[in-house]
Amino acid sequence: MSFRLGIDLGGTSAKLALVGPHNKIIKEGSVSTQGRSVPKEIIEKLTVEAHRLMKGKKISQVGVGVAGDIDFEKGVIRVSPNLGWKRVPFGRLLAQRLRRKVILDNDANVAAWGIYKTQVSPKVKHMMVLTLGTGVGGGIILNGRVHRGATGTAGEVGHLTMIEGGRQCNCGNKGCLETYSGGLYLTREVRRQLEKGQQSQLRSLFNDNPDQLNPFVIAEAAQAGDPYAQSVWNEVGHYLGVAIGNLIYVFNPEVIFLTGGVSHARDLILKPLWKTLRERAFKVPVGAVKIKIAKNAGHMGVIGASLL
Amino acid sequence: MSFRLGIDLGGTSAKLALVGPHNKIIKEGSVSTQGRSVPKEIIEKLTVEAHRLMKGKKISQVGVGVAGDIDFEKGVIRVSPNLGWKRVPFGRLLAQRLRRKVILDNDANVAAWGIYKTQVSPKVKHMMVLTLGTGVGGGIILNGRVHRGATGTAGEVGHLTMIEGGRQCNCGNKGCLETYSGGLYLTREVRRQLEKGQQSQLRSLFNDNPDQLNPFVIAEAAQAGDPYAQSVWNEVGHYLGVAIGNLIYVFNPEVIFLTGGVSHARDLILKPLWKTLRERAFKVPVGAVKIKIAKNAGHMGVIGASLL
Repeated sequence: MSFRLGIDLGGTSAKLALVGPHNKIIKEGSVSTQGRSVPKEIIEKLTVEAHRLMKGKKISQVGVGVAGDIDFEKGVIRVSPNLGWKRVPFGRLLAQRLRRKVILDNDANVAAWGIYKTQVSPKVKHMMVLTLGTGVGGGIILNGRVHRGATGTAGEVGHLTMIEGGRQCNCGNKGCLETYSGGLYLTREVRRQLEKGQQSQLRSLFNDNPDQLNPFVIAEAAQAGDPYAQSVWNEVGHYLGVAIGNLIYVFNPEVIFLTGGVSHARDLILKPLWKTLRERAFKVPVGAVKIKIAKNAGHMGVIGASLL
Repeated sequence: MSFRLGIDLGGTSAKLALVGPHNKIIKEGSVSTQGRSVPKEIIEKLTVEAHRLMKGKKISQVGVGVAGDIDFEKGVIRVSPNLGWKRVPFGRLLAQRLRRKVILDNDANVAAWGIYKTQVSPKVKHMMVLTLGTGVGGGIILNGRVHRGATGTAGEVGHLTMIEGGRQCNCGNKGCLETYSGGLYLTREVRRQLEKGQQSQLRSLFNDNPDQLNPFVIAEAAQAGDPYAQSVWNEVGHYLGVAIGNLIYVFNPEVIFLTGGVSHARDLILKPLWKTLRERAFKVPVGAVKIKIAKNAGHMGVIGASLL
């Protein structure tokens, strides 16, 4: 029987999973990474948890997805803002403790790989994934392989410039796609509008405690017919439509997946997204693409990592 | 000795070349394609010219680059606005006459392939070419292969949306990159500003005959110190910088080439382009890329086609 271990290492927690035949999750675990964690401490915790999961199973290789800028070839975390780490040879350090080969990749690449290997026909050659979480990331599959580019930075779709001089982004630039479709900015913008007196069903939640606002409750309000909340999602869908239209023109993929917390808004995003996409002049590449919401999104990180 | 035939089929003329060892052009020819040409007529003319060039040489395969939307697999010209053709099985028709295998591809892909095979180190894996001509096209090399995408439409960088609701593009959409960096739009915009009374060295040419305005004379005026002409190129470079910044974030290539008539402005474009690129937050992928003006641009079409 073939088993694999996948780890999804984020700034709040690391999820671990023992993955069996047919990409089924056999056992799961997790480890907190919150606070100012030192790499050594996290590696210790991961080692204990990994050994618990791997007990009695033959596992030759461990895959890890990390939020950040990763040197795939060397297994080094160049920068992970979420973990607060710089230049950590994580692959080597974890491999020493686990006595197994460890492969490291960016979390969006890993999620894209997991979706590619479990949710599309093997005939699909070119695919993109946009991870709409707090921020926005992307993973690209071309000719059935993860496209990482010259420095492993490929797929950085969250920071595509949509509007020069537009909304301020945490990256330091303005008008990035992330500022129009990432959960952090989306919520911040709603809060700002409510402060300014915007009419909305969301007001009672906001007045009670502004921290209760998040993409889920904004989607609920839109589904309940709140015009302001609907306009927020129309804007998210529109900007994703412009960005995805550009990505289709350059990559010409067969399928694009949306994943991450914000993508749970589903049709609230997909309808305005397709409205914008259908305005594009070149019908052939736009007509050839399917846009889907990824299934089992919470597990694609660990499954993708296990398949690296 | 190994010889190959390459054909560069455009809306004004078709260039043919017999290419020898080390990608050296041995013999050249050309055929007019201007006016409302019927495919059969063009194929007849090409056959005569091709036989003249191939005489006494062993040639098993002919490559053709065509401006338009090409079905690479089937050798069909889906649409070529420049030639005024739709759904022409050009590959099959020419193969019947030449009694040789004919491979057809989009002209920007062909130029990119020619540049890739003759102007970069074999170590380079990921490369992009932007063809700045009357319009703007693009060719993409990933992992050492032309990336054509699901429908052969990949690399359509000229119609990336730069500014929603921006300048009207011939494609039917607004704000496409082409409208800020293609020769047609560039010249049109200069004419419009001169009509409005813009001060410039270009005025005497314009007053004499507005048709004398073109990217070459606008570049000459800028090199001679004309502030208005310089501002035109600063704008071209800036928008190319924004677009190339986005392309670097998603593709992360090692090198990007500019080619086509507009690229002769060289530093007039490259300086503002780099100024804009250097403002990007993610320094690693931007720092890893080289941006070059292609050499021997007039021959990259036939050489690239001969290498298909």
